[in-house]
Amino acid sequence: MAEKTFYQYSVTPQQVDFTLRATIPSLGDDILATAGVDAQRKGFGVDTLNDSNCTWVLSRFAMEIDRRPKQYESYEVATWVNGWNRMASTRNFTLQNAEGEIFARAVSLWCVLDLTTRRAVDMTSMVEACRHLMVDDPSPIEMPRKVAAVEPQRTERHRVVYSDIDFNRHMNTMRYICLMLDMLPIERLAENRPVRLDFHFLHECRYGQTLTIACQEFDEYALFEIASEEAVAVRARIEWR
Amino acid sequence: MAEKTFYQYSVTPQQVDFTLRATIPSLGDDILATAGVDAQRKGFGVDTLNDSNCTWVLSRFAMEIDRRPKQYESYEVATWVNGWNRMASTRNFTLQNAEGEIFARAVSLWCVLDLTTRRAVDMTSMVEACRHLMVDDPSPIEMPRKVAAVEPQRTERHRVVYSDIDFNRHMNTMRYICLMLDMLPIERLAENRPVRLDFHFLHECRYGQTLTIACQEFDEYALFEIASEEAVAVRARIEWR
Repeated sequence: MAEKTFYQYSVTPQQVDFTLRATIPSLGDDILATAGVDAQRKGFGVDTLNDSNCTWVLSRFAMEIDRRPKQYESYEVATWVNGWNRMASTRNFTLQNAEGEIFARAVSLWCVLDLTTRRAVDMTSMVEACRHLMVDDPSPIEMPRKVAAVEPQRTERHRVVYSDIDFNRHMNTMRYICLMLDMLPIERLAENRPVRLDFHFLHECRYGQTLTIACQEFDEYALFEIASEEAVAVRARIEWR
Repeated sequence: MAEKTFYQYSVTPQQVDFTLRATIPSLGDDILATAGVDAQRKGFGVDTLNDSNCTWVLSRFAMEIDRRPKQYESYEVATWVNGWNRMASTRNFTLQNAEGEIFARAVSLWCVLDLTTRRAVDMTSMVEACRHLMVDDPSPIEMPRKVAAVEPQRTERHRVVYSDIDFNRHMNTMRYICLMLDMLPIERLAENRPVRLDFHFLHECRYGQTLTIACQEFDEYALFEIASEEAVAVRARIEWR
C-alpha cells in the first residue's frame, strides 16, 4: 500500500476573478493537473497509455469548495487512488492551505479509452500492475452523483474552437465548467459560499461541433446539460450550501 | 541597479494542445503571471496600487516563440524592468529550458490606471521610489509594433462572460489571444514554427459587451482587430517565420 502524494500550488493573478479569489474552474484546473502529473510520475500517465493506443478519460467528477483561496495564497493538493476495478479508477483530492485548513475536496472517476475504437477498455491487467500504488484511505466526499435531465429555462450556443480542446482533441473539462458558470448571474459567482459541483461526462465533444448549453436554476442549486448535435455530452449540478 | 529575477514553471497537461506542446496563450499566461508575482514581491504589485485606487494595465505586448515546449517540460522565466517613464514601464522576459536554450522572449509595456477616472496616471513619483529595482539590460526583442487597421476577410462575435474577465472586471488578455487564434485554421495552430505576436491594447472590454473579432490572413502573417460596440479594443499581428 502506498501513501498520499502532495503537490504545491499558489493562486496566480491569472486565476482570480474580480473578487480576487481563485475561480472555481481554476481550482478544478489545478486538481486535474495534479491527477495528470501524479499518474505520469507513477508510470501510468497519458504518455504510457498512449504507447498502447489508449488514453485517460474523466467520467465523473465532484468537488466541494468551502471557500475560494485569495490571490497569491499557497496551498497543497493531496491526491490518492483508493479504488480501481475493471471499468474505472477512483482518484481523490484534498486542498489544504498553509494554516492546515482543508478548504476543498474532490473525487474523480477515470476510464481508459481505446483511441481507435473510442470505447472504454477493461482495466483488469493495469489493476494488477498498479495494486501497490493504491492508498488505503476513504474518499473525502460523497461519490459524484447522477444528475437528472434538465428542463431548460434558457440556452446558449457555443462552437468548439481550438482554445477549447485538450490533448485528446476533445473539449477540455474546465471549458465545460466555464460554459456552465457563464450562464449564471454574476452576483451568484461573486459569492464565496460553500459549493458542491457534480459532473457526469457522457460523450466527447470535438473540434468544430456546435454545442447547446441548457440551464435550469433553482433557489440553492442549478442543473446544466451540454449537448452536441449528436448526443448529450455533460450533465452537471451546482449546489450552494 | 538590480538583477534579473527567475521563476520556475513546467508545462501541465492543461496547458497543451493536441500536439502535446504548450499553447501560445498558456505561455503568455505564464509570462503575465510572472509579471504579476514579480511586481507584487518587489512591492509595486496590483495590491499596492489598489491602496491608491490604481491598477496596472497592459498597453503593448510582443512575444517571439521559437518552439513551444512539450508537456511536463520545465522552464525558467527571467524577468526584468529596464525602462520606466512618466507614462509606461517596460518589463522584459526570456524563457529558458533545462538545457539552457532560450526558446521564447517577450516585452511588455504597462501603464498605471486610476480606477475612478479610468485614465492613465503619471508614474513619475513611482519611478523615483523604484529606481533601485531597474535592471541595466536591453530588451531581448524589438519593442511591440504598431498594428495597422484590419480589412476583415471574416468576423466572429463574442459576448464577454464571467470566465473572460480578470481582477479588473475587464476582458483577460489571454482570452483576447484565444479569440484571435480560434479564427485561424487549426492546421496553422498545430505547426511548431517560430512565431512573433504583437498586441496593441487600446480600450478595455467589460462584462456583458458584445465583441466583434475581425481577421485578415496573409501567407505568413495575420492581422486581427477586436472591437466592442464602443471602440476598437485590441489590434494584433501574428507572424510565422
